[in-house]
Amino acid sequence: MIQVSGYGALNANASIAPIQFERRELGDKDILMDILYCGVCHSDIHMARSEWGPSVYPIVPGHEIVGKISQIGPGVTQFKVGDMAGVGVFVDSCRTCPSCKKGQEQYCDEGFTPTYNGYYRDGITPTFGGYSKQYVVDEAYTLHIPFTQELERVAPLLCAGITTYSPLKYAGVGKGHKVAVLGLGGLGHMGVKFAVAMGAEVTMLSTSPSKEKDAKMLGAHHFALSTDQDQMKALRGKFDFILNTVAAKYDLNKFLDLLTVEGKMLLVGIPPEDNELGSAKLISRRRSIIGSNVGGIAETQEMLDYCAEHDILSDVEMIQMKDINEAYTRISNSDVKYRFVIDMTSL
Amino acid sequence: MIQVSGYGALNANASIAPIQFERRELGDKDILMDILYCGVCHSDIHMARSEWGPSVYPIVPGHEIVGKISQIGPGVTQFKVGDMAGVGVFVDSCRTCPSCKKGQEQYCDEGFTPTYNGYYRDGITPTFGGYSKQYVVDEAYTLHIPFTQELERVAPLLCAGITTYSPLKYAGVGKGHKVAVLGLGGLGHMGVKFAVAMGAEVTMLSTSPSKEKDAKMLGAHHFALSTDQDQMKALRGKFDFILNTVAAKYDLNKFLDLLTVEGKMLLVGIPPEDNELGSAKLISRRRSIIGSNVGGIAETQEMLDYCAEHDILSDVEMIQMKDINEAYTRISNSDVKYRFVIDMTSL
Repeated sequence: MIQVSGYGALNANASIAPIQFERRELGDKDILMDILYCGVCHSDIHMARSEWGPSVYPIVPGHEIVGKISQIGPGVTQFKVGDMAGVGVFVDSCRTCPSCKKGQEQYCDEGFTPTYNGYYRDGITPTFGGYSKQYVVDEAYTLHIPFTQELERVAPLLCAGITTYSPLKYAGVGKGHKVAVLGLGGLGHMGVKFAVAMGAEVTMLSTSPSKEKDAKMLGAHHFALSTDQDQMKALRGKFDFILNTVAAKYDLNKFLDLLTVEGKMLLVGIPPEDNELGSAKLISRRRSIIGSNVGGIAETQEMLDYCAEHDILSDVEMIQMKDINEAYTRISNSDVKYRFVIDMTSL
Repeated sequence: MIQVSGYGALNANASIAPIQFERRELGDKDILMDILYCGVCHSDIHMARSEWGPSVYPIVPGHEIVGKISQIGPGVTQFKVGDMAGVGVFVDSCRTCPSCKKGQEQYCDEGFTPTYNGYYRDGITPTFGGYSKQYVVDEAYTLHIPFTQELERVAPLLCAGITTYSPLKYAGVGKGHKVAVLGLGGLGHMGVKFAVAMGAEVTMLSTSPSKEKDAKMLGAHHFALSTDQDQMKALRGKFDFILNTVAAKYDLNKFLDLLTVEGKMLLVGIPPEDNELGSAKLISRRRSIIGSNVGGIAETQEMLDYCAEHDILSDVEMIQMKDINEAYTRISNSDVKYRFVIDMTSL
């Protein structure tokens, strides 16, 4: 096993603190990367605290990882030492089910192997995330990084980026479409950038008037206050798509009203409680709600290449590893523009 | 105005009783039909009792109408006296919005003109339904009846038929697909027939073991008891489509679990209360919920022609007009196989 330094939690009530742990040895098809940057996703907080069911402890969070390859297994063909590499939300899957065969490993019938808070396919070796010095990963689940600068702004693309890119592509968003983005956080700010790049006319819907300026700086063409009944009424039936990134309780039916005939709500946020769905909101206008979870490895690579081509990067605030608990507090207060990224040289 | 005899209600608490009312004169493009049969839809009960918001009284229900044309306006070109004709859920729409121009009048931006319980485009002339001797309707909203026999079994196609045919076609249901039909009533029994005719492998999901035999007689290949946890568990992830006809409160999340990756729930039933939707049920497998409301005039004609070609008819119980209140009670108790149809010669 390889001894690795990192930051993690020993149980659901513990803060994130220095930790030593063991990663698997470098296998035939594995690469070993020295981690440069790791984004801080809201799900890191949920899982560190066992808020999405019991987590595997000790837990080392982090699944928006960019690093430099320092070693490769003898069977590795797609990467070489010195390459920049990325790891996202998962690091393996069954590889044989229909979804895996289609390159949609995120929907693996047996469940993917999460980058942290889970076990490798052997069912006993735990996975540890990117709040650490090194990661060992199969090259088949490793991304090429088509950037040479601002790599800290690439890290959040591995989760926030692909989570918003995939549903927009799946739904066929493009020129002439009116798209609303619901919620301006890590996901929402990437959603605005992608929808604009794809040619859509983009409206940011937010509960906070202070976000109008930010939304327009990100490229949104319009802004509407979702708490203003008159503004919401004026937007009824106007959007072909709503990218819904909200992860708190909200009035789903109010937003369904904003969709046009055959309009589609793309659901990527998971609120802690169920939402109330009025069937007539969908039936009366042949509307849909479509769920979407990150993206497959091939699509994630496509997204990174798309970002390089279109100069799309995440907007980030850099932090040092030791400041992670303060960052969690600020994320919980929605006080971040729009992703914290840990500079791993600070570890 | 034309004096017409029918059955209707004077207010939300009244039973359905004989009534005399006035229809508009025959216009240039109108046909006058002598009604032969009218199906009894569950929505007749809801609207007679103002259960979906305040209705227009007096109300004469009925929107599954088959009759024989006895008179035509001078501008009528598609029908002649003596033809059989049908009327479904609506009898006009704005004719200029994008949906109307696409032949999807059911999603008219200004709202369609309902066959009863509403007003013509003038906003003041009330519409009265098919529990009556005659109907006056624009030929553009009239269906050709490609059957010469068992016309009583054609009437329910005009609502229950098109309501289930349209979403199955929209979703592209066909050979090789696994389809579950949820709820075995007027809609569900048509859903089974259509899904089978389209080549799918069809499972009826019902809360009542007694419906297994009925479901198989209608053509369903399999039956599962939705109250049996083991049966439901065994069906997780198995269906490409679920046609959901349930109009009572139910556990939506339980049924979403049965959908495969990219599986689609086709929603046509409107429960009186909202349902609880767990976002993760959609997100984890890229599942969708798609609403659908009846169908346009062109698609309704296509459905009737499809029925004629594939020998599909509704299963009905005939009643006399005077027995309508008893029929309502039986429908409310789900005690009908599967649609009551009024023999209008009994009026």
